[in-house]
Amino acid sequence: MAGRVYLDHAATTPLRPEVRQRMVEVLGEAWGNPSSLHAEGRAARAVVDQARVQVAELLGCRPREVVFTSGGTEADNLALKGVALAHRDRGRHIVTTAVEHPAVLEACAALERQGFEVTRVPVDGDGRVDPERVLAALRPDTILVSVMLVNNEVGTIQPVAEIAAAARARGVLVHTDAVQAAGVLLLDVEALGVDLLSLSAHKIGGPKGAGALYVRAGTQLLPLLDGGGQERRLRSGTENTAAIAGFGVAAELAARECRDRAARLARLQRRLEEGIRARIPDARIHGAGAPRAPHITNVGLPGVTADTVLIQLDLEGIAASSGSACSAGTPEPSHVLQAMGLAADEAFGAVRFSLGDGNSEADVDRVLEVLPRVVERARRAQALGLAGA
Amino acid sequence: MAGRVYLDHAATTPLRPEVRQRMVEVLGEAWGNPSSLHAEGRAARAVVDQARVQVAELLGCRPREVVFTSGGTEADNLALKGVALAHRDRGRHIVTTAVEHPAVLEACAALERQGFEVTRVPVDGDGRVDPERVLAALRPDTILVSVMLVNNEVGTIQPVAEIAAAARARGVLVHTDAVQAAGVLLLDVEALGVDLLSLSAHKIGGPKGAGALYVRAGTQLLPLLDGGGQERRLRSGTENTAAIAGFGVAAELAARECRDRAARLARLQRRLEEGIRARIPDARIHGAGAPRAPHITNVGLPGVTADTVLIQLDLEGIAASSGSACSAGTPEPSHVLQAMGLAADEAFGAVRFSLGDGNSEADVDRVLEVLPRVVERARRAQALGLAGA
Ligand SMILES: Cc1ncc(COP(=O)(O)O)c(C=O)c1O
Ligand SMILES: Cc1ncc(COP(=O)(O)O)c(C=O)c1O
Repeated sequence: MAGRVYLDHAATTPLRPEVRQRMVEVLGEAWGNPSSLHAEGRAARAVVDQARVQVAELLGCRPREVVFTSGGTEADNLALKGVALAHRDRGRHIVTTAVEHPAVLEACAALERQGFEVTRVPVDGDGRVDPERVLAALRPDTILVSVMLVNNEVGTIQPVAEIAAAARARGVLVHTDAVQAAGVLLLDVEALGVDLLSLSAHKIGGPKGAGALYVRAGTQLLPLLDGGGQERRLRSGTENTAAIAGFGVAAELAARECRDRAARLARLQRRLEEGIRARIPDARIHGAGAPRAPHITNVGLPGVTADTVLIQLDLEGIAASSGSACSAGTPEPSHVLQAMGLAADEAFGAVRFSLGDGNSEADVDRVLEVLPRVVERARRAQALGLAGA
Repeated sequence: MAGRVYLDHAATTPLRPEVRQRMVEVLGEAWGNPSSLHAEGRAARAVVDQARVQVAELLGCRPREVVFTSGGTEADNLALKGVALAHRDRGRHIVTTAVEHPAVLEACAALERQGFEVTRVPVDGDGRVDPERVLAALRPDTILVSVMLVNNEVGTIQPVAEIAAAARARGVLVHTDAVQAAGVLLLDVEALGVDLLSLSAHKIGGPKGAGALYVRAGTQLLPLLDGGGQERRLRSGTENTAAIAGFGVAAELAARECRDRAARLARLQRRLEEGIRARIPDARIHGAGAPRAPHITNVGLPGVTADTVLIQLDLEGIAASSGSACSAGTPEPSHVLQAMGLAADEAFGAVRFSLGDGNSEADVDRVLEVLPRVVERARRAQALGLAGA
């Protein structure tokens, strides 16, 4: 969309040209079924194998520890429910945090309906979880700890390595949702010390429809999708070869460019946040007191509801979001911001800007030009009772 | 692959050019997240909505009864496990057949490990299930009957409408796996009378990575993938927009061309089967006594193992298969052919040819030229103990 300023990369990213090219190639030439033994099948198998190596290199793991899924949501569900199914005889207690993505929290809720117990460890005012509190929540029947690496709404980086080291010492499996970390933090499953790690291709310039779960060799897990036995029996279903191939390319680019990208985005982020602070003095950058990923800025705007601001920004050509994608229709105050201690009306006044490869200083400056005006107008309208609640 | 004769359309089909074009368009222009409210998100939402209408038209249902999944395997798992989860308090018994796809049979096995009971109704020598036997298997605690419409190994058409009418009259939900039926049989969920129906895009010229479950309005079902609440909460995860769009186009083409395609494929099938019978007198067409889909021919070749034949055919440029894709590595005799009463060595001697849009009479004639020679050679080698088992 020409002339648009897209600042919602945490929701999804445009496809990188290199990814697109590879996908078009695979769609045309390697359309076989990777399970077929003939030439068409073997060509497709080679495509999947190559992508598996590329994703493994991003994570510092072995290719056979990568299980391709249809996306981050499936990877999270497979981690949580797959461990629960496989270890239910050992214990039925899971520890997670109050600020996880719905793919983790709703999977936990589903497990609760099946007789599991879940402890959701609270976070501090910056959205950060205290490793001590996670460890204090462990019980003899705890089978899994799941703590995300980067929060998708505010960008807070969680102390996953510290938590993993302590939890694994107590014999508890550790999962991390690294969907928002890929491409901006260096990922290394050994340094993180986790047993399971979720990725999603479409957050790093890859396609929707592909994701992966890293499963450390030896980890017991049962599949969610049973059938033909693909992905070493952990994820049946004909492989989405084109999307997996695109994911592989995106993973390779993410690994190669991570340092430079992170530095570049951090500069843009600083420009954006300093600019907002200067122009909207009562705005608050949520999570600013904690280590944060360089691509996410969540801004509290007192006296407005985010929706009003977002609609105006959209009309001005700027795409941002309220942080929590709301597919179900009814807007709810963000569970992340509420866990950080914000009141519901404060949570409703938060706007998330998330940066990506396509963004320039000019994009940031455009936001700095438009946002104060939009906020000012929204505040006046709301004060007069003309919009929002 | 130039010059190849591809006769494995039941495993997967090449992407149709119309599908590919639409996908490339969506990958480039509608890359937004359908859950986002800004312009980029709305463009992606429109893509998904359009495809939902196209798939609904193929099935004769309402768009909101279509739940997009990552493929046929996920659709089958969602149907079986989703009903089991939602109705477990009403009953824990499921009725299916001995010849279902592994996506159904392995989902049933997983449910058995969780305390459900499954009755697998046997089939006759042609692979057809007797509706009376299905109905006789119903119990007061039966919650679901799952019977496939077209068998993927031999092409047998099952009397689903008859079974559905009787089962539903007894208050039991009915699912059918119509993955192999789409594009060759007219599908109409009202005429079939089913509550749930599975489709897979890549079997009808669409992409891998998209499928659908038809869920009749009012049917209680719980999701396998929890999270953001997409697909009316029945299937969370960012929608695979490009694959879904491609699926929509493939569904529209399937609906429009079904009659002509079925007639054309039936002619090719007749030519193939008559030719094989004439040239290899002891060959047997499995399932020939039952109504059969026009694209699948499963040939029993006494005295050879299919693998030996398939490798030789592949070298001669012909792609066929042994019917049951074997992703796990170790070849097992087909559960379908065994259920039809064949001994293990007979089952190991079966080769499946499956026809599709790209095939011509010349392709069939090429098989008729090559196959007798290959079989002859394989028989001599096996008689001398040089190959196979
Ligand atoms: C932290 C996090 N986890 C999981 C997901 C879900 O991934 P997907 O969109 O691939 O289903 C997302 C994205 O929405 C995310 O931000
Ligand atoms: C009858 C049947 N059901 C289900 C499936 C699984 O579909 P998918 O390959 O999309 O996972 C297949 C194809 O392998 C099939 O033939």
